[in-house]
Amino acid sequence: MTDTKTSRKEHILEAAAKLFSEQGYASVGMRDLAQAVGIESSSLYSHFGKKEDILWDIALHCAQDFNDTVSPIAHSDLHTKRKLQEMIIAHVDVTLRNRLAAPIFTTEWRILSEPRRSQYANLRDEYEKMFRNVIAKGVEENLFRPIDEKFSALTILSALNWTYLWYKPEGELTPNQIGETLAQMLTDGLVRTF
Amino acid sequence: MTDTKTSRKEHILEAAAKLFSEQGYASVGMRDLAQAVGIESSSLYSHFGKKEDILWDIALHCAQDFNDTVSPIAHSDLHTKRKLQEMIIAHVDVTLRNRLAAPIFTTEWRILSEPRRSQYANLRDEYEKMFRNVIAKGVEENLFRPIDEKFSALTILSALNWTYLWYKPEGELTPNQIGETLAQMLTDGLVRTF
Repeated sequence: MTDTKTSRKEHILEAAAKLFSEQGYASVGMRDLAQAVGIESSSLYSHFGKKEDILWDIALHCAQDFNDTVSPIAHSDLHTKRKLQEMIIAHVDVTLRNRLAAPIFTTEWRILSEPRRSQYANLRDEYEKMFRNVIAKGVEENLFRPIDEKFSALTILSALNWTYLWYKPEGELTPNQIGETLAQMLTDGLVRTF
Repeated sequence: MTDTKTSRKEHILEAAAKLFSEQGYASVGMRDLAQAVGIESSSLYSHFGKKEDILWDIALHCAQDFNDTVSPIAHSDLHTKRKLQEMIIAHVDVTLRNRLAAPIFTTEWRILSEPRRSQYANLRDEYEKMFRNVIAKGVEENLFRPIDEKFSALTILSALNWTYLWYKPEGELTPNQIGETLAQMLTDGLVRTF
């Protein structure tokens, strides 16, 4: 019984992420969503009291996935440059496996009402802090240029977040290859030094 | 008479960009927009037959601004690395002076109906081509690493496009300083080589 309920809920979340990514969160009504899942509206409301609860569940699920995947790397004792590269590769991997939800965790989370909006902003900030810290450490070790860590963390994450817009699962590059190339490009730059 | 009509139209476009950026294109109705501008709905309809016409006008205006600003640099005889850097600085400048319209030229243009959507996709492609060309030239000159020019052009533009989300006009950095830092970071990377 619990299992069925969990899987029904997951099924709704998946269908919602797909529908939101195709039509935009604001355009999708609870009735459209019930129809897409193939259930009655009343059954949908038994899982989620209002549409925003679905947005919130999807956003939280992704935040958790990003944190669970990147945090062990950030807290490992890898060499600073390789650590940043591995964090970039992991971030791309999480982005692309949650790509239907990417509009939500990149921009649409901003339409959450309070206190959820602030809670989510804090989760993002905690996550970005792992990137700021590794960059600051690289600057301290004289390994990276003396760049502002907040600015460069935002630049790196922006470049990574946008991959969901052009990634094609049937394309030539795997998420891992995309991550590797971005990691090299963002840490070593374009200009040849060898 | 023509002047007044032009300026009324521009006023509508500005108010629309602001309202769309605050509430999302899909959530704003023609009535909300007329109210924000302080005119009757019927007067709004005399300028724009439907809401999508406004989206289209804003998108085209921005595409024109990007092209007019970046194209002279792309076709100059600057050294390849400096050319790419100047193009990056110019792109950031255009992004930030049109930042209210940024959701439109980055993602929301995708909701345009055909044939506008394809026309706009072509304009974007022509624009991106200037970045692909300068990167390909740098690779050919053995100045840049042997990186795929399509991939790196997309990465650079993604990093630049996202600046509108965190730029604060009252903050410490000017658009030009942001552009300079991004230009250095994206061409030379983070890692010290001196």
